[in-house]
Amino acid sequence: MFIDSNLRVQSDDDVTIKVLYCGICHTDLHVIKNYWGSAMYPVVPGHEIVGTVTDVGSGVTKFKAGDTVGVGYFVDSCRACECCGNGHENYCAGVVLTSNGVDHARGGAATLGGFSDVIVVREHYVVRVPDGLSPERTAPLLCAGVTVYSPMMRHGLNQPGKHLGVVGLGGLGHVAVKFGKAFGMKVTVISTSPRKRQEALEHLGADEFLVSSDPEQMKAATGTMDGIIDTVSAWHTITPLLMLLKPMGQMVVVGVPNKPLELSVYAIVPGGKGIAGNNVGSVGDCQAMLEFAGKHGIGAEVEVIKMDYVNTALERLEKNDVRYRFVIDIAGSSLGSAA
Amino acid sequence: MFIDSNLRVQSDDDVTIKVLYCGICHTDLHVIKNYWGSAMYPVVPGHEIVGTVTDVGSGVTKFKAGDTVGVGYFVDSCRACECCGNGHENYCAGVVLTSNGVDHARGGAATLGGFSDVIVVREHYVVRVPDGLSPERTAPLLCAGVTVYSPMMRHGLNQPGKHLGVVGLGGLGHVAVKFGKAFGMKVTVISTSPRKRQEALEHLGADEFLVSSDPEQMKAATGTMDGIIDTVSAWHTITPLLMLLKPMGQMVVVGVPNKPLELSVYAIVPGGKGIAGNNVGSVGDCQAMLEFAGKHGIGAEVEVIKMDYVNTALERLEKNDVRYRFVIDIAGSSLGSAA
Repeated sequence: MFIDSNLRVQSDDDVTIKVLYCGICHTDLHVIKNYWGSAMYPVVPGHEIVGTVTDVGSGVTKFKAGDTVGVGYFVDSCRACECCGNGHENYCAGVVLTSNGVDHARGGAATLGGFSDVIVVREHYVVRVPDGLSPERTAPLLCAGVTVYSPMMRHGLNQPGKHLGVVGLGGLGHVAVKFGKAFGMKVTVISTSPRKRQEALEHLGADEFLVSSDPEQMKAATGTMDGIIDTVSAWHTITPLLMLLKPMGQMVVVGVPNKPLELSVYAIVPGGKGIAGNNVGSVGDCQAMLEFAGKHGIGAEVEVIKMDYVNTALERLEKNDVRYRFVIDIAGSSLGSAA
Repeated sequence: MFIDSNLRVQSDDDVTIKVLYCGICHTDLHVIKNYWGSAMYPVVPGHEIVGTVTDVGSGVTKFKAGDTVGVGYFVDSCRACECCGNGHENYCAGVVLTSNGVDHARGGAATLGGFSDVIVVREHYVVRVPDGLSPERTAPLLCAGVTVYSPMMRHGLNQPGKHLGVVGLGGLGHVAVKFGKAFGMKVTVISTSPRKRQEALEHLGADEFLVSSDPEQMKAATGTMDGIIDTVSAWHTITPLLMLLKPMGQMVVVGVPNKPLELSVYAIVPGGKGIAGNNVGSVGDCQAMLEFAGKHGIGAEVEVIKMDYVNTALERLEKNDVRYRFVIDIAGSSLGSAA
């Protein structure tokens, strides 16, 4: 077992968590393969974690053994800056990522993520999973879910009757559709793949499906949307998407294409439209998102695998061959005996 | 005189205004020279108008003869759409521009702007000029002023202690500096021209001056600004500007470069930053802006000219040879006798 030797000792404000399920995010793939040059091997991936509290430090007040909890993209931050003070830890310059993060409080050691049977996390960065949510379907909400939920809340794309466009129907996009519907919005999926229509409408409950390569369809939808969540990580043109927005509409970009996008100022000035980026969500966003998911029975669509399938899953993920998120059944994989 | 023959008859809800002063905006230049292919000659330019009410229709309740009033970029809108209903007439698809606008209510006739001794405007699109404001320095506020004031209000860039960057120190930028200071903000002017430093700091009251072509200065200012108003109409790189923003910071674009800007998603996603366009402001924004200007004694820096200097002024404007706005003393130009 490649974990326990590096597991940190539980401090007074720490929670020790037995990991039940951990989602596989594209970021895990990027880090493992060192696409960003940031890998600190050996990397223990995983930041979409649901588990059970097994022990808590003496100063912990929010959790007790037996609680079902979640851990997302980060496990610490500076707690002194403006972002931390405002409850936006996700934008703290000293944020410590859950996996392959630089833990300055521990001499710069790399953090070890959720592909592990146990994880020790400071209380503040742990969220409660409401009763009734399926743990395996909840795990991807801790990153993919909050990455779309947080900007929807921030930009007012959570109001009944508003019209939301969701670009790209992958791990993030399919959850955005679910949140949009639960908010009472009209949701249109925008995709280059006409073959996703049935899935979008019948399985995920979207109201409409728009093929972005069809100029007639795009023209007919001009100026109809209050907001757009763009989850596409490949380079793409955004002007046709901006044209879909009503005046003062807001587009949110959560994918990260490598090449700069082309921003025609004519697409945003006359209509007072906006484009904003978003990076996951705060601890508060995560907790609120889980409460909302609990109330509306929202979970990711997942393919649950055992740990011995991880390498195959990563290969399939690289080819976008997943519907919609791989989640590892950590507790059911007997990691301890697999060492 | 090239106006009176086309002047529309005052209706019940119209206000007849004797024009005192009218600013010259870059848009006027673009329309006159037909750069956008939209000119309906003979064009009567002008949409930064301050004047005196001389007569009102029987249904007019807000104004009476003798009132000092202003008219901005538009004089009508559909009054039926979502934008009009929400008080955002500036984003109505049926907005009727003050000059060279298509007036559907009058058979599609071109509207005649403020380079004229009289103008007749529907009451709703007229604003009150508070006592104590200089009419010539107020005229440019009706377009240049509200174009920066409106997005500052919308995006929370009006709060004491926040840090505002203003890119470009022309007709729009210099007023943005004044509003920023009146809001109690720290204001930094960002310019490619080091020679504008003294003007920015000593004359306009900016707190700091940043030369955008100096990498050291730009690096030192990384992550320090809550918002940026970018008034530059020439093509320019925006990534270095976005780097100046704090996390969740907002950049507002009010210039309209012809070529698409390069939007690096890495510049907005990790920090949750935004870029928004803006087009002038609503009638309500205009009125609020004038009240604010009245309270704080804000006016544009102007070079007042007579009508017989207009052609020279337009030539100088094309070369950016103005500090900061030409304003025509219409009432003092004896238009009637110049025919």
